[in-house]
Amino acid sequence: MFEAQMAQAALLKQIIESIRELITEATFEVSGTGMMLQAMDSSHVSLVALNLRSDGFQLFRADRPFSMGMNLNHMAKMLKCAGKDDTLTMRADEASDLVTFLFESPGNERLAEFELKLMDITSENLGIPDAEYSATVSMPSAEFQRIVKDLGSIGDTVEITVTKDDVRFAASGDIGNATIKCRQLLDTEKPEDRTLIEMVEPVNLTFALRYLINFSKATSLSPSVTIKLSTEMPVVVEYKLSDIGYVRFYLAPKIEDEEMEGEA
Amino acid sequence: MFEAQMAQAALLKQIIESIRELITEATFEVSGTGMMLQAMDSSHVSLVALNLRSDGFQLFRADRPFSMGMNLNHMAKMLKCAGKDDTLTMRADEASDLVTFLFESPGNERLAEFELKLMDITSENLGIPDAEYSATVSMPSAEFQRIVKDLGSIGDTVEITVTKDDVRFAASGDIGNATIKCRQLLDTEKPEDRTLIEMVEPVNLTFALRYLINFSKATSLSPSVTIKLSTEMPVVVEYKLSDIGYVRFYLAPKIEDEEMEGEA
Amino acid sequence: MFEAQMAQAALLKQIIESIRELITEATFEVSGTGMMLQAMDSSHVSLVALNLRSDGFQLFRADRPFSMGMNLNHMAKMLKCAGKDDTLTMRADEASDLVTFLFESPGNERLAEFELKLMDITSENLGIPDAEYSATVSMPSAEFQRIVKDLGSIGDTVEITVTKDDVRFAASGDIGNATIKCRQLLDTEKPEDRTLIEMVEPVNLTFALRYLINFSKATSLSPSVTIKLSTEMPVVVEYKLSDIGYVRFYLAPKIEDEEMEGEA
Repeated sequence: MFEAQMAQAALLKQIIESIRELITEATFEVSGTGMMLQAMDSSHVSLVALNLRSDGFQLFRADRPFSMGMNLNHMAKMLKCAGKDDTLTMRADEASDLVTFLFESPGNERLAEFELKLMDITSENLGIPDAEYSATVSMPSAEFQRIVKDLGSIGDTVEITVTKDDVRFAASGDIGNATIKCRQLLDTEKPEDRTLIEMVEPVNLTFALRYLINFSKATSLSPSVTIKLSTEMPVVVEYKLSDIGYVRFYLAPKIEDEEMEGEA
Repeated sequence: MFEAQMAQAALLKQIIESIRELITEATFEVSGTGMMLQAMDSSHVSLVALNLRSDGFQLFRADRPFSMGMNLNHMAKMLKCAGKDDTLTMRADEASDLVTFLFESPGNERLAEFELKLMDITSENLGIPDAEYSATVSMPSAEFQRIVKDLGSIGDTVEITVTKDDVRFAASGDIGNATIKCRQLLDTEKPEDRTLIEMVEPVNLTFALRYLINFSKATSLSPSVTIKLSTEMPVVVEYKLSDIGYVRFYLAPKIEDEEMEGEA
Repeated sequence: MFEAQMAQAALLKQIIESIRELITEATFEVSGTGMMLQAMDSSHVSLVALNLRSDGFQLFRADRPFSMGMNLNHMAKMLKCAGKDDTLTMRADEASDLVTFLFESPGNERLAEFELKLMDITSENLGIPDAEYSATVSMPSAEFQRIVKDLGSIGDTVEITVTKDDVRFAASGDIGNATIKCRQLLDTEKPEDRTLIEMVEPVNLTFALRYLINFSKATSLSPSVTIKLSTEMPVVVEYKLSDIGYVRFYLAPKIEDEEMEGEA
């Protein structure tokens, strides 16, 4: 038996909206520590890791580890039916192939129960090693989204260069070139407006823009985003979910040869 | 000679917008009592009845009963050109095949005259008998619209069940099932937020969702909607227009056999 | 060497947005007096003239007359990347085939440099003679846009009639006819709300609506529009840019024969 209750159904709706374009089917793993999901996108290029800690829920009960394979587009259809202040209760048990989403309005005058069919998904075990990164940049998530979208109108890839004082995003294409430079900015009114650069050694890496643009759909989940970079390692783009967990996206850098190929 | 004046051209615009997807051509019948329209949708499944009483107009003059066949999409094109505070004067006479819509801005500095070509439409006489209903539910129109749209993403039909204390809307489809339950709610700040259930005997009826979704386009016409149900009778979905009349939609329930056929 | 600085990058963005549907490629001519552009639309029916005076820039330097051929859609892609309060610095020199757009955020913490490839465009020299007009109408630009859009849903051409007291816009089509009459209106709270008619002699001219609708994309550039009309002369539709210049659109009237042809 699995049961979990969230104060805001809208949070799970936003999470699923932000990842369902990358991954259409995924297995949620439920255990005493919480609810998590790891999946590669359909082209096997990027990886999504979602982690919701049990203590971030209003109520969380998982008698034993439990897997729930879901079609995220179907799940999104149901979560869209939640009112903006509705609470969400999820329920499932081994005896049934359904997960129940229960939306309750604040005054309790409206009760909506949605049952989603579960599915079997053969999921690979994806070992994500913890790593030390050469450079970590925290910046407003809306600013990151704007940069990758803007550069996406100029080229296919972005070259990210982190130095002690600034981070640069550069792209080029048929119509010309673009470079956007963000300076470290610590002294802001709100902490989430800061651009904070922690650099062990300078990095210079190139990534496919369309994946970064896709990751930035998670902008609504958090006012700031953290980008972790190391040479020859996948970049981590992390959106923290206050008091409950995080969504992380991983993307391998383009290596020189690939770029050549791409340009040929 | 027919002439009628409305304080808000926007009202007629909203009315036509809410019905023109169901019926593209219709005959307005004008007489001393007002202006009315009855028409079946093109698939002959649902029926629209519009009634605007003469006393709801600022000025109303109809020398004798008069029929005006109009293409509602063309009519909508013209009504869209009314400013949001414009008054509307309609004029027509037997000698011409045109109806004139005159939009006047409040300060009178702008005068727009649109002439729409009338058309001959062979219209059936649709006898709509007055009936007693087993259950009548009044609820916020926005809530009704949200329910039929939400369920429309799950299934094709909705099963409506009215009991003494609540009304339930249920749908099921390939991805799962949904049930939305609204409790009777009398003690609200605004009367239009109430959910009021008057039940003579319990009813349980099934309807095609796409028609109900279409009816709910009239949501902007009224803050509340009234749904009247009886076994083996068409449901009535009524939007009252304050001080002037109503728009009513009728839809026959699905019977068991049809459902079977639909599912096969 | 050419260098020019604008307080609001958003202004150039709006200008290019308002003309790029008519002209996709154009040559900007830069000289000591400022920056200008003249081009016919691709169908060679209408003409756009943009004039930005050097004194309207924060900084303007043009060592010698200089031509820059640009694809306006590519230019628009880059200008869309400017923040809403960013300043804009443009730079180009003869030695390179690039023009640089530099966007700086108010706090200077973000610097975006876009380089657009220039192109060779064989441009005709378009002599636009200064003329006296029979009638000049100034009116709110939003009102003009609304009229041409509204009439565009009724017919293909608009007949504009200016008399001493009012200006009339008339269109007709398959579904019916429309006439919109705007009275002279001098006594308004804001000067830009005025409708001012200066008439030497009455005029009655017919124009293709789709061009006027296209011109009205410049509505965001100015709260009022000035329309200058003379028999057998192109109409001028002018949007003044406060403190820096103007955008003017020219369109030849339809003559009787053309109309007949169009209707056949």
